Amino acid sequence: MGINEPLNRKLRMALVGGGQGSFIGRVHSIAACLDNRAELVAGALSSNPERAKASAPDYGIAESRAYTSYQEMLDSELALPEDQRIDFVSIATPNHVHFEVAEAAVKAGFNVVCDKPMTYDLAQAESLLETVKNSDVVFALSHNYTGYPLVRQVREMVTSGELGEINAVRAQYIQGWLRTSLEDEDQKQAAWRTDPKRSGAAGAFGDIATHAYNLGRYMTGLLPDQVSCHLKAFVPGRQLDDYGTAVIRYENGALGTVTASQISHGRENDLEIEIDGTKGSLRWRQENPNELIYRQNGKAHQIITRDPNASFMNPMGAGACRIPAGHPEAFFEAFANLYVAAFDDMAKRASGQPIERHDTVYTNCYDGVEGMYFIQQCVASSNENAAWLPLKHEAARP
Amino acid sequence: MGINEPLNRKLRMALVGGGQGSFIGRVHSIAACLDNRAELVAGALSSNPERAKASAPDYGIAESRAYTSYQEMLDSELALPEDQRIDFVSIATPNHVHFEVAEAAVKAGFNVVCDKPMTYDLAQAESLLETVKNSDVVFALSHNYTGYPLVRQVREMVTSGELGEINAVRAQYIQGWLRTSLEDEDQKQAAWRTDPKRSGAAGAFGDIATHAYNLGRYMTGLLPDQVSCHLKAFVPGRQLDDYGTAVIRYENGALGTVTASQISHGRENDLEIEIDGTKGSLRWRQENPNELIYRQNGKAHQIITRDPNASFMNPMGAGACRIPAGHPEAFFEAFANLYVAAFDDMAKRASGQPIERHDTVYTNCYDGVEGMYFIQQCVASSNENAAWLPLKHEAARP
Amino acid sequence: MGINEPLNRKLRMALVGGGQGSFIGRVHSIAACLDNRAELVAGALSSNPERAKASAPDYGIAESRAYTSYQEMLDSELALPEDQRIDFVSIATPNHVHFEVAEAAVKAGFNVVCDKPMTYDLAQAESLLETVKNSDVVFALSHNYTGYPLVRQVREMVTSGELGEINAVRAQYIQGWLRTSLEDEDQKQAAWRTDPKRSGAAGAFGDIATHAYNLGRYMTGLLPDQVSCHLKAFVPGRQLDDYGTAVIRYENGALGTVTASQISHGRENDLEIEIDGTKGSLRWRQENPNELIYRQNGKAHQIITRDPNASFMNPMGAGACRIPAGHPEAFFEAFANLYVAAFDDMAKRASGQPIERHDTVYTNCYDGVEGMYFIQQCVASSNENAAWLPLKHEAARP
Amino acid sequence: MGINEPLNRKLRMALVGGGQGSFIGRVHSIAACLDNRAELVAGALSSNPERAKASAPDYGIAESRAYTSYQEMLDSELALPEDQRIDFVSIATPNHVHFEVAEAAVKAGFNVVCDKPMTYDLAQAESLLETVKNSDVVFALSHNYTGYPLVRQVREMVTSGELGEINAVRAQYIQGWLRTSLEDEDQKQAAWRTDPKRSGAAGAFGDIATHAYNLGRYMTGLLPDQVSCHLKAFVPGRQLDDYGTAVIRYENGALGTVTASQISHGRENDLEIEIDGTKGSLRWRQENPNELIYRQNGKAHQIITRDPNASFMNPMGAGACRIPAGHPEAFFEAFANLYVAAFDDMAKRASGQPIERHDTVYTNCYDGVEGMYFIQQCVASSNENAAWLPLKHEAARP
Repeated sequence: MGINEPLNRKLRMALVGGGQGSFIGRVHSIAACLDNRAELVAGALSSNPERAKASAPDYGIAESRAYTSYQEMLDSELALPEDQRIDFVSIATPNHVHFEVAEAAVKAGFNVVCDKPMTYDLAQAESLLETVKNSDVVFALSHNYTGYPLVRQVREMVTSGELGEINAVRAQYIQGWLRTSLEDEDQKQAAWRTDPKRSGAAGAFGDIATHAYNLGRYMTGLLPDQVSCHLKAFVPGRQLDDYGTAVIRYENGALGTVTASQISHGRENDLEIEIDGTKGSLRWRQENPNELIYRQNGKAHQIITRDPNASFMNPMGAGACRIPAGHPEAFFEAFANLYVAAFDDMAKRASGQPIERHDTVYTNCYDGVEGMYFIQQCVASSNENAAWLPLKHEAARP
Repeated sequence: MGINEPLNRKLRMALVGGGQGSFIGRVHSIAACLDNRAELVAGALSSNPERAKASAPDYGIAESRAYTSYQEMLDSELALPEDQRIDFVSIATPNHVHFEVAEAAVKAGFNVVCDKPMTYDLAQAESLLETVKNSDVVFALSHNYTGYPLVRQVREMVTSGELGEINAVRAQYIQGWLRTSLEDEDQKQAAWRTDPKRSGAAGAFGDIATHAYNLGRYMTGLLPDQVSCHLKAFVPGRQLDDYGTAVIRYENGALGTVTASQISHGRENDLEIEIDGTKGSLRWRQENPNELIYRQNGKAHQIITRDPNASFMNPMGAGACRIPAGHPEAFFEAFANLYVAAFDDMAKRASGQPIERHDTVYTNCYDGVEGMYFIQQCVASSNENAAWLPLKHEAARP
Repeated sequence: MGINEPLNRKLRMALVGGGQGSFIGRVHSIAACLDNRAELVAGALSSNPERAKASAPDYGIAESRAYTSYQEMLDSELALPEDQRIDFVSIATPNHVHFEVAEAAVKAGFNVVCDKPMTYDLAQAESLLETVKNSDVVFALSHNYTGYPLVRQVREMVTSGELGEINAVRAQYIQGWLRTSLEDEDQKQAAWRTDPKRSGAAGAFGDIATHAYNLGRYMTGLLPDQVSCHLKAFVPGRQLDDYGTAVIRYENGALGTVTASQISHGRENDLEIEIDGTKGSLRWRQENPNELIYRQNGKAHQIITRDPNASFMNPMGAGACRIPAGHPEAFFEAFANLYVAAFDDMAKRASGQPIERHDTVYTNCYDGVEGMYFIQQCVASSNENAAWLPLKHEAARP
Repeated sequence: MGINEPLNRKLRMALVGGGQGSFIGRVHSIAACLDNRAELVAGALSSNPERAKASAPDYGIAESRAYTSYQEMLDSELALPEDQRIDFVSIATPNHVHFEVAEAAVKAGFNVVCDKPMTYDLAQAESLLETVKNSDVVFALSHNYTGYPLVRQVREMVTSGELGEINAVRAQYIQGWLRTSLEDEDQKQAAWRTDPKRSGAAGAFGDIATHAYNLGRYMTGLLPDQVSCHLKAFVPGRQLDDYGTAVIRYENGALGTVTASQISHGRENDLEIEIDGTKGSLRWRQENPNELIYRQNGKAHQIITRDPNASFMNPMGAGACRIPAGHPEAFFEAFANLYVAAFDDMAKRASGQPIERHDTVYTNCYDGVEGMYFIQQCVASSNENAAWLPLKHEAARP
């Protein structure tokens, strides 16, 4: 395959956020460029103009395209000739800024790759979805765990019926880094993620439970019906939840659980999911992502390793691998796979072809709305003594 | 230590249930005799008199003491001289028979080791507790997983404050053996365990969720406050739940989850528990019982192996080991540890010393009541759309 | 199955060694009696008469049969009526005493279960083998790891040709307990095991490499041809090896490696073996004995769990299980399986039937000779700069 | 840090080899560019001129710099102005071509990153080392596993004395892909790797045992003294070894073992190493590279996870991480770390600063000579019945 066929050139990337001290901005730039299908050429790297400028050299961004605001960036890039202008904008700012940047970028006609949760609240998300629908841009949301080859493998195993009817989905995402009041110690990440003004209505549930929930949705395609949720802030003084558990009823009768913690000592990014189907069961864990445990009664347990050449891998799984089994691929490669899938659509679009909007290989704007709805209903349920609240949203049915 | 000091002799065991085709009867006899502190001398091995007789030789029970009913057994043994008479009765029958056997044995003055769940329903359990309280016998309930050395280790780690305040307990017990309608295929175990008349109000929740719940209680001592539960029978035609999840609020504000499944392909006896305290977090899994993962922020993860000679083991943990680290101990040894703890009390009692009644090293009649209450409230909650129901029971406070 | 059919009674056991402070004596008594097919009735528990007497109550041995020497024991037991007399003698003394006790017991007509290494040196072993051959007793050697169900599973997988031709066997047994000069700190186990007068010509290689070597022999049946070995005593002042590695050429061209260490910090009883056949490869590890990894190119890796009811288990594997998968069985149960196999032959013999002598399910006197030859040749090779020395012994071909 | 300080610009990369069908060429280009410190601008991608041209677009190499031979490439690049000219050449051809390309590139004044084994034979390697010594270029050899953060962590743990004196190193690299005669099935990789004319004197030992050996050298710094080796070709008709085991005596008295297999069913790239020091022992495995097991007698086992922010990580280990613990880094990131270390020296050199030659963070030309010497002596030893041959080489002492 050539680079970004049929476009046959690298895509030009701009980054919003990601200035000095950021973690996820660097991840976006590495992931986007990993397969040599994009290059980072512009950025509005910080809301602080000086830091925005100072951060550019590290990214190899020329001074002329190191903008001091996203508005300036969009305006300036639009003024450039088409063959120099950026193709897409990656948004790696705190949550409360996503909406305005994304909306402006989409309206300016740029493709967008946006961090999750997509927006500050559901209203913004629904509004943004409408904007995207009315545009012809590609909009990808970085539920990056969906880029792991074995996650894609599972998706196709379910779709193809290999697991039978899905009865149960158990997902948990366990961390320990907010065990103490880091937000009181001037830790930048902790500060905004525990601040309702910047993070949104939920803490752990907005930050990581959404990943766990999305992972189950992405793998199984089960449509949610209702949720009952229980959130807690165990660390004294904390304004947003640092622990919670949600029970989900799916439309087909399946039961789901999503548990998220940021107060579990020593736990890192322990996202784990188990799926029970009538024909087989699966277990996958992000910290050891090259193994998928597949079990069927009466057979020895199987460890499916990420192996692009193996007949036990399906096209979605194998297609997301870069190297043979035994040489592990990990976080950056999975993140890059999300970009790769988005690039496929961006290249199509740039060459005048129509693009997919729903159920894309990459998580998208519809997933973003679902995620915000999940957060909203979990918070509401928790506030109403874990009442059962609806979890159906039309975004799940385009 | 001598055998059953200060009694200085083996204890004489009788077994009710455990006839041909039974699994757990054999386990009781091996576990009870493993340390040479008891010998099996009598039995009422089946409700079918012929099978009761025929099963005796395998256990090495003399024909004269192979009784055809528990009533006959209790009467005959009482008629024997004290120095030949049985010391205790182990009950390994289907659930609905536990109560009558246990009550009769206690009233006859025999110590009892009873399978869980303790009785058919809560009323029986409360009644039995009263009977036991008014007796001077030892009553142990076979929540056998509490006999694992590292489970005991955890109990003392919590008690001693090593983990700080407990915030969360996540327990699950996942099996796959009832994925299909085994009960329609004349499988004896499946038949009674899915039959409300013999198993009680719950299926998976009575059989295995009670273990998971009890394990959390045993390890942490947290007092439960409320429960919200969701039960399902996924296999068509099944009368009792084969899957369910419960959320528990503890009095101290901690959150718990208990999930049980019997419909997860290929899963065996996957009882796993995670505990989050303010000072450390733990993970233990029954299928790999000689390892306990202990994590604290800022430190490398620790694998505590069952090691009686190690300074990182506490007395409760070390005291439950028979051999040095690296030679695994497993299911039978854990089960035997429950017996060992009960024997300590039986020997005390036989020598005229007072015995403990509550918070014993072995799980006891109070735990049995709590278990039956848990089942009752889970079923009720599930029937009321997962309503929050009380989970406080006075049995937790003697 | 009845108890010890066709004999239909428990076998009577005597224990030599195992006095206070012993580890392995207790293991023998628990393992032998675990299935209720034997009872411990007599003992010569220590070479120190007082300790021999004092140790008896813990084992439930009556004072009258608590002998002060093995000679006294054999004489006295022979003087008893046949229906009271012991059936077998278990030898759990330091290595240098094995020979005299075993020879005397065999000559007295008693069956023997002897700790490994079988004797102090090869000459004793060969002599003992002749004595056993000329007797009609059962002689079992406690290479206890061969009792694990999945070890037996492997043996039949190889025998049946499921793995094809065997090309390679890699075994290692890694411990850390002799990292420091424990022998200078009055630790009894360390003292005799590092003393050439009591342990024999080798330290780690006599104590644990023999297990690793035997495990490969037991699993594959490959006949050894030559060995090149390198032994070291890393701890200053130690007289016997605490580390070593041997390369083995098998007759069929396969290559083997055996590595043993007692100086690897924190390692417990990490006996691990990997086998490569032309049709499949295996990995098994004693510290996690309920899992066997089975791999074949082009297929997902398989985890064979100890599961008596599974069609993927063969009769030898399944027959060594007591309980269904997911409830782990471990060290004691494996040790007991060795006894069970020996009991089968003892019962046959007691009822006048002929018994097997070679390639028994339990490891036997021939294995003992092979083990002593392995030790001798390893030490000799190491002394000759790791020269290749023969490893063929006629004991491998009865 | 700026990009390639003090040079402050991206380095320009050329790739030799890596044409269509290649695996490792793509790896080099991704790894080199991952951190945005280099860009691939030129290539001689195949010895077949048509394929060389056709492969260029995939790499984003302009047609004008898609050369049809490395000679043409070196000449043409030298003719370019300095600020366009390539900075370094990455060599990803079959082994027998390494030498001529590397020598020419070095003589032309270009830095080199060369695949291992460095050359076809030792003579070439020694010659190349002289050439490099007499140049001022940076020469890195892609023993890529040394780029894993936890491998670097181990190196510093040893250097700093944390493990005490090293007694033993056990390394193995187990694969299964050459279990059958793939070379007869027109599989390109298999064809050249099993062909003595292109691969060199050894098969598995040249391809993967060198990695295992190098890993031990890199981690411990132990100087080798002698080797005894046993090689086999188990697959009928194969000309080079597909299995082998070597025992190594180190100068300090430590013992090492290196085992390599390409005929172990289902094994992928199972490179594993265990190190025993007087103060602690370690275990690391490439397929699960984010965990390092650290054990010390008397303490719970420790799992050191790759965590740049943890105090238990040393500067070398932490410095090789890109993201916090729990988000796994893997093969590409490790490979990129090798490039990063080489870039540091290239940038120094380009700015006129002197560069390191020996004991660099990246594996270098000295390591390459040692590797070729290891291969030569292993083959020779195997041919002489596993005789002990010297393994000291002056390259280990610059």
